Amino acid sequence: MQETRLDTARIRAARRVIDPTFLDTPLYRCEALEPDLGCAVSIKLETANPVRSFKARGTELVAGLLADKGSRAVVCASAGNLGQALAWSGRGRGLDVTVVASRFAPAAKLDRIRALDARLELVDGDFDMARERAAAIARNDGIRLVEDSLDIETCEGAATIGLELVDTVPPFDAVLIALGGGALATGVGHVMKALAPEVEVICVQPLGAPAMTHSWRQRRVVTTDSTNTIADGVAGRCPIPAVLDDLLLVADDAVLVQESSIIAGMRMLLDHAGLVVEPSAALGIAAILEDRDRFAGRHVVTIVCGSNVDVDAYHRWVGAAPIHKV
Amino acid sequence: MQETRLDTARIRAARRVIDPTFLDTPLYRCEALEPDLGCAVSIKLETANPVRSFKARGTELVAGLLADKGSRAVVCASAGNLGQALAWSGRGRGLDVTVVASRFAPAAKLDRIRALDARLELVDGDFDMARERAAAIARNDGIRLVEDSLDIETCEGAATIGLELVDTVPPFDAVLIALGGGALATGVGHVMKALAPEVEVICVQPLGAPAMTHSWRQRRVVTTDSTNTIADGVAGRCPIPAVLDDLLLVADDAVLVQESSIIAGMRMLLDHAGLVVEPSAALGIAAILEDRDRFAGRHVVTIVCGSNVDVDAYHRWVGAAPIHKV
Repeated sequence: MQETRLDTARIRAARRVIDPTFLDTPLYRCEALEPDLGCAVSIKLETANPVRSFKARGTELVAGLLADKGSRAVVCASAGNLGQALAWSGRGRGLDVTVVASRFAPAAKLDRIRALDARLELVDGDFDMARERAAAIARNDGIRLVEDSLDIETCEGAATIGLELVDTVPPFDAVLIALGGGALATGVGHVMKALAPEVEVICVQPLGAPAMTHSWRQRRVVTTDSTNTIADGVAGRCPIPAVLDDLLLVADDAVLVQESSIIAGMRMLLDHAGLVVEPSAALGIAAILEDRDRFAGRHVVTIVCGSNVDVDAYHRWVGAAPIHKV
Repeated sequence: MQETRLDTARIRAARRVIDPTFLDTPLYRCEALEPDLGCAVSIKLETANPVRSFKARGTELVAGLLADKGSRAVVCASAGNLGQALAWSGRGRGLDVTVVASRFAPAAKLDRIRALDARLELVDGDFDMARERAAAIARNDGIRLVEDSLDIETCEGAATIGLELVDTVPPFDAVLIALGGGALATGVGHVMKALAPEVEVICVQPLGAPAMTHSWRQRRVVTTDSTNTIADGVAGRCPIPAVLDDLLLVADDAVLVQESSIIAGMRMLLDHAGLVVEPSAALGIAAILEDRDRFAGRHVVTIVCGSNVDVDAYHRWVGAAPIHKV
C-alpha cells in the first residue's frame, strides 16, 4: 500500500512503552449477540482499564516522550476520553496536565478528568472550539499541545489494538471501527492493511456527525456547521487533512448510522453481552443492524472503545423496557 | 503450609490446557470506587469472555481430560455458570453435555446453556437437589459426573486466577473471593498461601446462604435447610467435606454480608466502574462496605467472577434511582 504517516515497527515498539494494564485487552466471540445480527461477532473490549477507553494507549506514548524530554506540562482538547487518559498518563510521570473540554461533555468524563488531578477548562461550545482554546493555551504558556489523531503517537498507540487483532485465531473478515478524529481508524486500519490486508476495514460514524465520512467519500476535507448525536466521543466538525490522507489509504468503507441504531446497539450490548458502553462504542453493532445482508455469515470484530457514560443518560437511552416493567 | 488437595505445578501446567480467551483477564485499579470505599481497589475481571464467568478455567481442564480419554459424554449440576462453561468447553471437544439446574435459576443462565447445545434438565428444587439428580444421571448412564469444587480440576482451573494475581505489580494486601462451593476460594487461596502468603485471603458469602462460612468457623461441615439470597451463584446448603478441609488451610477469614450490601455493591460497580455484574460478583465490594475500618488504606483485589444476570431483575435491584428520574 501507499505509505501512511504510521510505521509498523514503531507501533510494535510502542507496546514496550504503554503500561501493560492497557494492552492485550479481551477479544472474544459473543454468540449471544449473533442470532439478532446474523453474523459471527467478536468483541475487542477497551473498557476494562483505569480510564475505561482505548485512549491511554496513545497518551502513554505522548507522556512517555514528554517525560523523557524533561517536559513539565501538557495541554489537550478532549471530548472527554483523551483528557482522562492524558491525565492518568501524565500524573504517573509528574506532568501538569491541562484539559480543555466542552461544558456539554458528559459529567462522568469531566468528573474523572478532575479526579485524576488535571486542570480542567471548559468552553461554552463544542469539541472544535475546545481545540482552538487548547492551541491558544499551548502558545501562551509555551507547553506541548497534544492533538488527537494529528499527533502520530495518538494514532500509533491506538494501532497497538490492531497488532492484537491480527494475532487472532481464527481470522476474521471485517473490523468495525468508530470514526471520530481518526486516530483509532487510521491506527487499526494501518496495521490491518500492513499485516492482514484481507480484512475489510469499515469505519462507522453517526449521521449526526458525518464530517470525516463525507470527507473520505469526497476525498477532500468537508466540514459541517454543527453536530447532532449522542455519540459525544466522535462528534467533530473539522477533519484534519493529514488524518484524512491516511484514512483514504487504509479504510475500505465509511458508513453513517442513525441515532436509533446506536441506541439499539447499546441495548443489545447490555442485554446480550452484559456490557455498559458509551454511544461511540456501539457504532459497530449499529452498522451491522443497518445492513445485515452485508455481514451475513461473516466474522466481524467490533472494537468496544469506551464506557464513560453518564448513568442517568444511559438509562434514558437504553432503559425503557425494564423501567416500564418495574 | 499443610498440603491442600491442589498442586501449584499442576496449576501452572493448567494454563497450557485452558483456551487463552479465558486467561490473563483484566486486572486494574478502579479509583472511581475508592472515595466511597476508603481503600485502594483493584478489579480482577472474569466476565469478558464467551461464558461471562471464571468457570471455564475449570471446565477447560475437565473437558480436555475427558477428550484425551475418549469420553463422549459428561453431566454436571450447576447454579448456571458451571453449566454454561461446561457446555462451551464440551462443545469444542465433541462431548455430549448434560446440565442439571434448578428451575429457579436465572433465565439468562438457562437460556445460554441451551444455546450452547447442552441438554438441560431442570429440577423443582435448589442447587443441592440438582446435585443429587446429576449424580443419578451419571450412575444410570455410566458417564462422568463433574462435581464443582470437589473435582480438583474445577479448583485448579480457578486457581489460575491466583497465578495472574501474584504476578501483579504493585503487590496488594488482601483478596476478596466469593464463597459458594469453594472452588474459587480454595483455588485462589492455595496459590496465595503458596506464592504470596502475606496476602490476606478473605472469603465472602451472603448471610442468606452461610453454610460454608459456618462450616469454616466451626471447623466441621454445617448444613442449612434453605437459602435466601439473590446471589444465586453461591447459594448452596451442603458443603463438601474435602473442600472445607482445603478452605481451612487457605482462608484467613470468611465473612457474611447482607443482601442490601450486595445490591449496593452491584450499584457501585455500575455507577463507578461501568460494570454490570451478577450478585455473587459484588460480594467483595459488599464486604468492604460493611467493614470500611478493616480495609482503610489497604490495597484490596476483588474478583468480579460473573455477569450472567437477568436484565430485568438487575434493573429491579440496582435501577431505583435512575428510574425515578426518568
